[in-house]
Amino acid sequence: MNGAESLVSSFLQSGLDTCFANPGTSEMHFVAALDRHPDMRCVLCLFEGGASGAADGYFRMSGRVAATMLHLAPGFANAIANLHNARKAGSGIVNVMGDHATYHLQYESPLKGDTAGASAVISEWTRVTASAGDVARDGAAAITAARSGGGRIATLILPADTAWGPAEGAVTAAAPPALHRPDEASIAAAADRLSRGRSALLISGPALRAPHLVRAGQIAAATGARLMSPLQVPRLQRGAGHPPIQLQPYPVDQNLAAHADLNGIVLCGANRPVNFFAYPGKPSLPTPPGCIIEDLCLPGMDVGWTLQALADHLELDDDAPFDTTPLDLPALPTGAMEIAKVADAIAALMPENAILVNEAVTNGAPILAATATARPHDLLVTTGGAIGQGLPVATGAAVACPDRPVIALSGDGSAMYTLQSLWTMARERLNVTVLIFANRGYQILRGELANLGVTEVGRNAHAMFDVEDPLLDWVALARGHGVPGQRAETADDLVAALGEALATPGPQLIEIVL
Amino acid sequence: MNGAESLVSSFLQSGLDTCFANPGTSEMHFVAALDRHPDMRCVLCLFEGGASGAADGYFRMSGRVAATMLHLAPGFANAIANLHNARKAGSGIVNVMGDHATYHLQYESPLKGDTAGASAVISEWTRVTASAGDVARDGAAAITAARSGGGRIATLILPADTAWGPAEGAVTAAAPPALHRPDEASIAAAADRLSRGRSALLISGPALRAPHLVRAGQIAAATGARLMSPLQVPRLQRGAGHPPIQLQPYPVDQNLAAHADLNGIVLCGANRPVNFFAYPGKPSLPTPPGCIIEDLCLPGMDVGWTLQALADHLELDDDAPFDTTPLDLPALPTGAMEIAKVADAIAALMPENAILVNEAVTNGAPILAATATARPHDLLVTTGGAIGQGLPVATGAAVACPDRPVIALSGDGSAMYTLQSLWTMARERLNVTVLIFANRGYQILRGELANLGVTEVGRNAHAMFDVEDPLLDWVALARGHGVPGQRAETADDLVAALGEALATPGPQLIEIVL
Repeated sequence: MNGAESLVSSFLQSGLDTCFANPGTSEMHFVAALDRHPDMRCVLCLFEGGASGAADGYFRMSGRVAATMLHLAPGFANAIANLHNARKAGSGIVNVMGDHATYHLQYESPLKGDTAGASAVISEWTRVTASAGDVARDGAAAITAARSGGGRIATLILPADTAWGPAEGAVTAAAPPALHRPDEASIAAAADRLSRGRSALLISGPALRAPHLVRAGQIAAATGARLMSPLQVPRLQRGAGHPPIQLQPYPVDQNLAAHADLNGIVLCGANRPVNFFAYPGKPSLPTPPGCIIEDLCLPGMDVGWTLQALADHLELDDDAPFDTTPLDLPALPTGAMEIAKVADAIAALMPENAILVNEAVTNGAPILAATATARPHDLLVTTGGAIGQGLPVATGAAVACPDRPVIALSGDGSAMYTLQSLWTMARERLNVTVLIFANRGYQILRGELANLGVTEVGRNAHAMFDVEDPLLDWVALARGHGVPGQRAETADDLVAALGEALATPGPQLIEIVL
Repeated sequence: MNGAESLVSSFLQSGLDTCFANPGTSEMHFVAALDRHPDMRCVLCLFEGGASGAADGYFRMSGRVAATMLHLAPGFANAIANLHNARKAGSGIVNVMGDHATYHLQYESPLKGDTAGASAVISEWTRVTASAGDVARDGAAAITAARSGGGRIATLILPADTAWGPAEGAVTAAAPPALHRPDEASIAAAADRLSRGRSALLISGPALRAPHLVRAGQIAAATGARLMSPLQVPRLQRGAGHPPIQLQPYPVDQNLAAHADLNGIVLCGANRPVNFFAYPGKPSLPTPPGCIIEDLCLPGMDVGWTLQALADHLELDDDAPFDTTPLDLPALPTGAMEIAKVADAIAALMPENAILVNEAVTNGAPILAATATARPHDLLVTTGGAIGQGLPVATGAAVACPDRPVIALSGDGSAMYTLQSLWTMARERLNVTVLIFANRGYQILRGELANLGVTEVGRNAHAMFDVEDPLLDWVALARGHGVPGQRAETADDLVAALGEALATPGPQLIEIVL
């Protein structure tokens, strides 16, 4: 057995059986080892950001850690943007980064780069394996690290000679350490804070899903607190039957307004509220002066236990009442295309149990509003603000949940960052319907420039916002990647195309001309 | 004047007038400032690796430092792979990385990331600007840093409030420090080494271009030394009339053979020879034991001065003789497609003064052989081995040299990393002919696996090498980006398509079915 074989065996023995890969020469021994283990599912991504984003989507939907396989420092760097999103989502991922053989690193070869430095930019755990005999132990440690704190980014750097040298056997990953829990005084203080009125329970992470979300809804109902979450949810169960939840708005003025009446906030799985960006003359924080924030349970702590402890403190039964969202579907739209009609079409047609991946930066808000009362579904959002996450996360979500339809919403600007994921969707026959909002530019930036008071846009600003000369042809881009595509120019087109796409297995793309 | 305005003014005043941009919200004040300065050429790239690769190609062909504009740590990370190539090419680039406002960084906002850490992975100079009043000075210092050592990666991190705060005026960049030069004893030792027989003059960087290349040819002719360069040339002038030069081969056994008879090597602009990767049981170095290497002039030193000093030491006139490559064009190929015929078609049709960008990893060698005696041209290669460089470098080279035809060769696997550059080619009407070698997979990895002795390829290896299910349709991908495309199935198809593409302004793509 060589080091590579010991790694693959350790992964499988530890319950890690999915690998999103973009390997290179330094990873060839791992490819050879994987080839002897067909029980490991290897999903090829044609760009590394596709692999890291898919591993994020996979974790969000399955709660299971997948591996990525990335080629040296430049290949890892290409994965960083979506690892950033994954880290903010609290997703657990094991990155396997190949490097040159230990004895080759003393020379100035073309691909020599700062592998450990690249990992340190984004990983919460990094280890450089010293020898082939250590690979199994280090691989198991990486899995334990990735499963710690509810989900972390762990990166194992494997010099090529640690793959081909002799190793002894597999190692099973140890269980991660127990999650931190708040003390009883904090529970009591939080319950008190929530019951004082003009309070919010701000939740994220595992609190956004059953059974914890119901518990959060029961606590909100019992205390009169508002139930809120960040806009950048890793995975939120919403729609009919779920507790209604207020998402913090992206626009700074709306975010200020959403918090204006609050005297207190209790955090459970979420960070303290902060505006997405700073703007001249506006505060960084959306909370009013004097609003007291209880850091009850920060990200990485034991969210489920904390909510149960709060419920117990409040003497709530398992069947305590909570507000539920009614099913309220809009009529199917007709006529000229407008964003409100797109929102209605999605809300009306989205099947029960769908996974809705939302990276429609400019057009996301009306769609979120319309789908709030749609059939029950999971919502996955770009957690770290690094665009190019939508298609990869949809890919990983579909790998994790082959029986659930995935609908991925993306602006044209966002989708261009990682469009190679379309090919992986076709390759793996993933049931993803991709909706591209062809607004022909970085519309979000137009708005941001206007926020600065710049109302006249000249040649250079045009040159940096507009993606309309030439027009991107998304139907052709889809076909180029092996995905069937249609263009919807009217609301009727969209309703027909979306209905057809949702009824057809495998990936489909619809370009929505706005 | 605000900080952003002072930066743009400092750039223009210092002779930096081209910016390859993929901006985000934190860069909006710079966009507004650029908008007031139409003399700055802003080229939009739809992915950050396209921006950094274009800045690299621009520097290689013009010798001028361009700026990139990148959005926070994730946006910068997307640029790292091609900055890695640019660094190995010795290209000078100023990266402007926006960050959150200084006072906003204390909060856990979604896009908060390790901007300085990301820069440190690849930059040779990093500065975080402290206040708006420092932006002009820091911008000028970044240009000086990028022009130092013949070309370096300099990154300026600009918190958003340094862009919108008050500033006083522009600052002109100081001249970079003088390049280091070898001492006289080293010149004499190198001349002696070259004259002893079984020696090579190994050149790279500026030594690969007129007038230094001619001087290197004269020194080789006078001493009997072999003229060699790394395969990963930043920019090599070659073809008819130029001195012939032996490129170090990529395959390890060929590289060993190419150095087997050498007793001595003199470095001028190049690093010491090293095999691209380490392989079990094979040496890291291609040079035989006892081969003496004179580190005469390492990358970043004064290559031109050194070659002239060598020539002076050898008492060579400016018109000393040197070997020149004869013009020897193959016949136009016909019949079924083969890589040798592709090579002949390119060699026969490539116009004088063309810029040949070669990222055809698997198929590059026969094309390099066939074009060695073609009409004089510049050759640009993936210097750092990070694939996805070809299309971006071709973009930047075409921006730098609007009157020269650019031919970009890429494998299908490589081109997928940064295919968004096609859009920028169309947007800027760049005269680039893109040839995609559709071998439907990472062929180079098949070879590497075979190098390990793995001859039977199973399901998982297939899953990670083959890009044939589904087939990528490059004509559709080109059309999607606004670039006209054709598919060439036979040599006759290719000859017709290549002739037409070279005669037509603007970008064209030809998918070569192999």
